[in-house]
Amino acid sequence: MFKQVIVVRTDLDMGKGKMVAQGSHASVEAFLDCQRKHPDWVDRWLGEGQKKIVLKVDSKEALTMLFEEVKRLLPAKLVTDAGHTQLEPGTVTCLGIGPAPETELDRFVSRYKLL
Amino acid sequence: MFKQVIVVRTDLDMGKGKMVAQGSHASVEAFLDCQRKHPDWVDRWLGEGQKKIVLKVDSKEALTMLFEEVKRLLPAKLVTDAGHTQLEPGTVTCLGIGPAPETELDRFVSRYKLL
Repeated sequence: MFKQVIVVRTDLDMGKGKMVAQGSHASVEAFLDCQRKHPDWVDRWLGEGQKKIVLKVDSKEALTMLFEEVKRLLPAKLVTDAGHTQLEPGTVTCLGIGPAPETELDRFVSRYKLL
Repeated sequence: MFKQVIVVRTDLDMGKGKMVAQGSHASVEAFLDCQRKHPDWVDRWLGEGQKKIVLKVDSKEALTMLFEEVKRLLPAKLVTDAGHTQLEPGTVTCLGIGPAPETELDRFVSRYKLL
């Protein structure tokens, strides 16, 4: 089984719409990164119904630390808000990882809770 | 300018994580539909920073009506939840439209409010 993980910061003052927009940026960016690096993973994930899991972290440090850990081994993209609404320009809001094999992903993210 | 619109039902009992996951499904599905129909639109949208707008509707009828209107002219995908958590299987949760030229999209969605 393949899945994509979206990790969202909960310590920012993001409304629901902002959270959906930022999470979707992470999803599309990580998808494109995976399409370049592992097109076979993308095909299998789409064929399985594109499973997505949304997790939370409570600080910028937790998010960037996870990104540094995971990016050497799996497709991953950090999302920075352009700052047109609600947030300061350059605010790191969330992280997209994969699609990737579930077992490889879980080694990095199993300690995080669902949003 | 190009943008993608994600329209989310607010009459369902979706938590924030569920909403982000369903909205991301809509975003990726509409993106893939656009990649098949208008690859040039996808390239321009990505080059402009992939603008995304998240809107709301308060019923299944409003969402499916908008989908029927828009799908003849623009790339669009309706998302149905698999029902593993929170919702009944087959529940229609949200709609992804585009990326598409802003002016063409606004003809269909300007009457809807931001989530």
